[in-house]
Amino acid sequence: MNLHRTPIAATDAVQAVMKHRKKGRKENVPLSECFGRILGEDLIATHPVPPFHKSPYDGFAFRSQDTKELSRDQPGHFIVNETVPAGHRAEHSIEKGQAVRIMTGAEIPDGADCVAMFEICQTYEEGNRSYVTLKRPLQPNQNIIEKGSETKEKEVLVESGAYINPGVQALLATFGYAEPLVFTKPKIGVFATGTELLDVEEELQPGKIRNSNAFMILSQIERSGGNGVYLGKLDDDFETCYQAVSNALDHVDALLTTGGVSVGDYDLMPDIYQKLEADVLFNKVAMRPGSVTTVAKVEDKLLFGLSGNPSACYVGFELFAFPIIQSFVGRNQMYHQRITATLGKDFKKPNPFTRFVRGFISYERGNVYVYPTGMDKSAVVSSLAKTNVLIMLRGGTRGYEKGDAVEAIMLDDQQRQVEF
Amino acid sequence: MNLHRTPIAATDAVQAVMKHRKKGRKENVPLSECFGRILGEDLIATHPVPPFHKSPYDGFAFRSQDTKELSRDQPGHFIVNETVPAGHRAEHSIEKGQAVRIMTGAEIPDGADCVAMFEICQTYEEGNRSYVTLKRPLQPNQNIIEKGSETKEKEVLVESGAYINPGVQALLATFGYAEPLVFTKPKIGVFATGTELLDVEEELQPGKIRNSNAFMILSQIERSGGNGVYLGKLDDDFETCYQAVSNALDHVDALLTTGGVSVGDYDLMPDIYQKLEADVLFNKVAMRPGSVTTVAKVEDKLLFGLSGNPSACYVGFELFAFPIIQSFVGRNQMYHQRITATLGKDFKKPNPFTRFVRGFISYERGNVYVYPTGMDKSAVVSSLAKTNVLIMLRGGTRGYEKGDAVEAIMLDDQQRQVEF
Repeated sequence: MNLHRTPIAATDAVQAVMKHRKKGRKENVPLSECFGRILGEDLIATHPVPPFHKSPYDGFAFRSQDTKELSRDQPGHFIVNETVPAGHRAEHSIEKGQAVRIMTGAEIPDGADCVAMFEICQTYEEGNRSYVTLKRPLQPNQNIIEKGSETKEKEVLVESGAYINPGVQALLATFGYAEPLVFTKPKIGVFATGTELLDVEEELQPGKIRNSNAFMILSQIERSGGNGVYLGKLDDDFETCYQAVSNALDHVDALLTTGGVSVGDYDLMPDIYQKLEADVLFNKVAMRPGSVTTVAKVEDKLLFGLSGNPSACYVGFELFAFPIIQSFVGRNQMYHQRITATLGKDFKKPNPFTRFVRGFISYERGNVYVYPTGMDKSAVVSSLAKTNVLIMLRGGTRGYEKGDAVEAIMLDDQQRQVEF
Repeated sequence: MNLHRTPIAATDAVQAVMKHRKKGRKENVPLSECFGRILGEDLIATHPVPPFHKSPYDGFAFRSQDTKELSRDQPGHFIVNETVPAGHRAEHSIEKGQAVRIMTGAEIPDGADCVAMFEICQTYEEGNRSYVTLKRPLQPNQNIIEKGSETKEKEVLVESGAYINPGVQALLATFGYAEPLVFTKPKIGVFATGTELLDVEEELQPGKIRNSNAFMILSQIERSGGNGVYLGKLDDDFETCYQAVSNALDHVDALLTTGGVSVGDYDLMPDIYQKLEADVLFNKVAMRPGSVTTVAKVEDKLLFGLSGNPSACYVGFELFAFPIIQSFVGRNQMYHQRITATLGKDFKKPNPFTRFVRGFISYERGNVYVYPTGMDKSAVVSSLAKTNVLIMLRGGTRGYEKGDAVEAIMLDDQQRQVEF
């Protein structure tokens, strides 16, 4: 048992972990399954948009030169050549005195250079032919969406590393990306350690608690875009734990454990790191909660030793494992968005070390407020349910008051930033 | 072809749709699959937390009355009875002059009423027995987390209708919810109509474009918690469309179509509503884009006729289909969170009708800004890629300037509100 650990600053700890980040693999995935994934290639316009001059309205296409002199008193009468539905082409180009009935989105016929909406045209039949009357002049290109006016061919519309939202999905479909290249979700293994842990379906027993950390972390992994794999819970037995951890490392991109990182008699992780000949990046962080969070590297795999305490575990994940997962999924911006917000409620506790307070965000008259979700006892699990930000209170500060400006780490959105 | 439609205000249109909302079905789902679902039952503490008096530290448990007189000059020496790891119970209660070595999270032994951390204790062995030295007094209950101090038994911790985030997952596990009751995802059918539509894997052809709306909407459905089912694309042929729509209604909770709702010759949806004897709630909304958005009801099913124009389709979905999906998934707060933000950039166009401008959110020094994502031509698909808010500009207003307060509808987060 070694009680003497040298704490490092939270920011330094994040940098230490991120030095060992790896970019993920890529795979082609059917477009219908791409929502929420990260793009692994630039999305390039494979054709101009629109791909042809098109009509923004249901109406009639004319030659503008035929309409120059028209007015209410001097209407023009045009023969309607044909009708062009969207998805079809006119069979003939239009000549002097002719018009074409055209639907929204349809291609402008050759010869035409303007469109009038139905609402300003009158139609009539005479001698088995259709006519349209127009009572005003139209300018060249009036009501024409020009080929390429929205997007030029070969333009990069979305860069590799972007989150695929509904709008990106629409663009992928538009440009024929039937199976886009996306980043593979990294496989993140999770062990919960501790003889006190019961499975969720077990009856409560004296001295024991149910394993809640594993379910929490698996959700955090999913929220961050990874593929969490639950590898089970482990009793505090050295050989069992060592074998399990050692074997698991071969089958995952990174491994998370909860519990066993402190200085108790049954905290086995430090000895396991030693036997694995792991390079321990740090085993003490100057922060609350989660000061015993440990990150080690075994060959090329990162091993995150998170605290067994739920809140410390939660914070440790978001600070250290989250950006590593962002790197695996190819995001250029790998950190949670961090914003300045106004503290909505006093938080009087002094902060000898950097403190990450569970909180939620609130928007009020153009300002952003954050509120602590409850008492910040690190053992209190229930306040995590309301948490969507971590309020970051710098070490070496006294209590904060309602109205103070604070930094907040956003947990529930898809925006990211480049620096921690 | 009926050109005369009576527009209703966007807010009234939302209310008209929501009158016909239905609450969804519920199902039990394994806890490991519950992240992101909506809770269908109250989450109740099935036992107090902690379930027993427990130690927050690795250390020694004492009887406080034995420590009253202790000081640096007058240390106390205690026999260490036994060691209690987390997950175990002490075998004996402690008596005068005795202590128990105890690990973080372990149950306090009978007789003990305080804990000292390892760091302030010295241990030694003598005559085959273990001893611990303490040099200060401890108070009754010092360093003891009392049974029920975090949560009382039967307390409602999270209400039915809540989004299941990582914190809620942790609570469900803690209290033994191995298969929580959650709301079933509603099945939302999607047809894209229009002869001009090509499948995403097809080569571009004259006058045609690829079907992008279906993929966009399916992602919007997924983002809102529904289960989107793509039913295919339909040519502008009345019988085909009528049969397809009519058959589909039996197999979905709601049906969305894109295209065919305007007044063009090939806009078949109005006639299809008629033949279905649908109750058309509205077929014109005083808004841009998406004024032709139509919502109808056939027996007990809602049929959303969204525009074929990508941006209008996007907006129509978020305004009208989104809250219906929130109702199906059991959320009490069924609308997107709407915030007041500062416009970051001029938007000079006048707004004869309520306008929903695609935009993105930005946090700057405690304030929230929104920026339009680009030109607001309703045909421009590419700006949807950056969109995470809809900036709502009231009808009857002139252009807005940078710095003006505007309302913004948040699209990418999990917060909701009760009223539209």
